[in-house]
Amino acid sequence: MSNIAIDIIGYIGAFFISVAFLPQTIKLIKTKNTKGLSLISYSIYQIGLTSFIIYASLIKNIPLLAANAFGTVINIILLTLIIYNLYYNNKDKNNNLTSKK
Amino acid sequence: MSNIAIDIIGYIGAFFISVAFLPQTIKLIKTKNTKGLSLISYSIYQIGLTSFIIYASLIKNIPLLAANAFGTVINIILLTLIIYNLYYNNKDKNNNLTSKK
Repeated sequence: MSNIAIDIIGYIGAFFISVAFLPQTIKLIKTKNTKGLSLISYSIYQIGLTSFIIYASLIKNIPLLAANAFGTVINIILLTLIIYNLYYNNKDKNNNLTSKK
Repeated sequence: MSNIAIDIIGYIGAFFISVAFLPQTIKLIKTKNTKGLSLISYSIYQIGLTSFIIYASLIKNIPLLAANAFGTVINIILLTLIIYNLYYNNKDKNNNLTSKK
């Protein structure tokens, strides 16, 4: 298989990995529902993304670098929204599940 | 930087990317709450993981292959649980939010 074909597969992967959590971010903005989301998961995911950014730079792999760099942008937004909704926006508690009052 | 050191960074990235969504899976098993989760995100993520598995095999990059292969195992479990809870397990609807009866 030609190098160009291989790179194209890499860029396809990079595209899907980059935009994967955009729908999750949009859903969180709409629903403000963090109940089902795991802050730990997205934090571990960020460590992985960061390690791969360093690794991709060292091995000079552009598809991998692109995937993890764009993935980081969306993941940071998602992490910020989860933390915001968990700690600052009590509205999430009021309009969610039976209230504990 | 030595190749071994670069590979180690790659394997660190692979480890964190692989286990990233384990806490999310465990949280879903415990809470059965799929309200906040985006099925679309985890589906797109799977397309990305699959593309990168093919890409990593073609460029013979083990850390990348490992990250996406293990990541796939957990993502398939998570997708199955989300679909199961969304379509088969009505209990999620009963013990969640005000009932619509």
